[in-house]
Amino acid sequence: MASPLLGFVIGGTKCAAVVGCDDGRIVACVEGSTPRTNTDDILAGLDTLAQEALTQSGVSLADISAIGVSFGGSWDSRAELTRTPPNMPQFGVVPLRKILGDKYGVPVGVENDANATALAELWWGAGRGCSSILFSTWGTGIGAGLILDGKLYRGRNDNAGEYGHTTLDPNGPECQCGRRGCLEAFASGSSIGRVATVRYGRPVEGVEVSRRARAGDPIAKAIVDEAAGWMGIAIANLLQTLNVERVILGSIAVNAGDLFLEPVRESARKHCWPDIWESVEIVPAGLGESSQWAAALAVAAGTETS
Amino acid sequence: MASPLLGFVIGGTKCAAVVGCDDGRIVACVEGSTPRTNTDDILAGLDTLAQEALTQSGVSLADISAIGVSFGGSWDSRAELTRTPPNMPQFGVVPLRKILGDKYGVPVGVENDANATALAELWWGAGRGCSSILFSTWGTGIGAGLILDGKLYRGRNDNAGEYGHTTLDPNGPECQCGRRGCLEAFASGSSIGRVATVRYGRPVEGVEVSRRARAGDPIAKAIVDEAAGWMGIAIANLLQTLNVERVILGSIAVNAGDLFLEPVRESARKHCWPDIWESVEIVPAGLGESSQWAAALAVAAGTETS
Repeated sequence: MASPLLGFVIGGTKCAAVVGCDDGRIVACVEGSTPRTNTDDILAGLDTLAQEALTQSGVSLADISAIGVSFGGSWDSRAELTRTPPNMPQFGVVPLRKILGDKYGVPVGVENDANATALAELWWGAGRGCSSILFSTWGTGIGAGLILDGKLYRGRNDNAGEYGHTTLDPNGPECQCGRRGCLEAFASGSSIGRVATVRYGRPVEGVEVSRRARAGDPIAKAIVDEAAGWMGIAIANLLQTLNVERVILGSIAVNAGDLFLEPVRESARKHCWPDIWESVEIVPAGLGESSQWAAALAVAAGTETS
Repeated sequence: MASPLLGFVIGGTKCAAVVGCDDGRIVACVEGSTPRTNTDDILAGLDTLAQEALTQSGVSLADISAIGVSFGGSWDSRAELTRTPPNMPQFGVVPLRKILGDKYGVPVGVENDANATALAELWWGAGRGCSSILFSTWGTGIGAGLILDGKLYRGRNDNAGEYGHTTLDPNGPECQCGRRGCLEAFASGSSIGRVATVRYGRPVEGVEVSRRARAGDPIAKAIVDEAAGWMGIAIANLLQTLNVERVILGSIAVNAGDLFLEPVRESARKHCWPDIWESVEIVPAGLGESSQWAAALAVAAGTETS
């Protein structure tokens, strides 16, 4: 195997170690729960997962050419420090790249998960051949990784792509962030569940909404169309600003497909210029379920070549 | 004079030829009305302006190292063709860079005026020392030039920065573009005049609104604050997406200063994340009235060095 890479995925619920190649091929992947105690325990846990993934793949640590981390939180690329994620309060502010570099003795790269997945989709997924793409998570939260003119764009302090909190209606529903009418307040998985719970008068989750909408339930179909309509407006706004050639949507767009994607496209088309619309495609993530693992490999691959 | 440059400004009302240096210094500038007939007459007019500007500056055409054009319309940078601007229907679809290159025998660059001014502000104006800035026109229309990680970002088909037509309220007032609730429908100079005309019950232009607001007229002050408030929301949305380090506003922000800028800042602050807000400044264009001329020189300077 040429150029084996090691990837770490650090998320609020699960962590994973991945062994793979710089063509995106995954050779082994081992998952585990994220320790709730502290950073040291999380890093020790990752090491155990890595040893297991290396054993499964028949690759020795000495052969690994680079390590990539897809971090489920914000990574301060100037200070080279993690920022403690809201959903992972046990993860401290640490120089993660240095810690792993010292520990494993190979080049290490770290990116937040949206940026990491954007790189994976660019090289190996739905963004192949493109110069400028936007990859967006679309689940509990909504956020994007931006590849502009072939390069990851992070912004001044690594907050580029946080369009889940752009305002689509200043008098809209309250958002978790404390403001009103953010995209997330209209279109995140949680918001879909919240709206459904009100309309059905009982606790309903997003997955049930999708299932019912597919079966023809008009209440569910309306909830889907409204959420997708707002997502389409937000994407049109991004297109008017960034004029990228491909918008790649994760999670909900991957799991529920055209049920959500068609009304997203219809709404985006209506809210942006014809010239801009004709130069873009809105597609589901090409790497599907394995995208989070490929994301860590992509960061490793980018580190290796940089 | 080291490295003299020639700049052409082509606008719907006026054209200009500028002679200057690659440090942004303007040595001579000659303006004229834009011929209403056809492209050939416009180019012949520019040539006359250029000869006059060269004479005034004591520079010979043979000494010019590059020509830059700041075009008041869309420039298709892949096809290398102008697109006929709505406000300049007499300007055809022509290979402007090639035409001028053949005519003058020096390297020629062409950019739309927002991109050209963004470059001028980056090198010589309010964006000096920054890596990522957004320069926005704010007059009859609203549009931006984006410098991201030190480079002009044009988008897939040169439509990046057209955030004047991002949707801020899908049920908002009708926009000239035919959609509803675009930024321009709330905050352009024309929209400010339109709102004032309704509230005062007689024709009122933007300039009068500024004057009255400054004099303490509460109706005018409310119109200013509302328009600036929407501008602030749009800028907050840009910041959540692009996390640039400086937002540079032209025209209205230059002419009316803090009257508009303060409520823009207040609204933007409320609608974006504290982390993002703390890393940005919103400032008026640093080159003031001469920015449109410096813009053409900046395109020439960029061409010379590329």
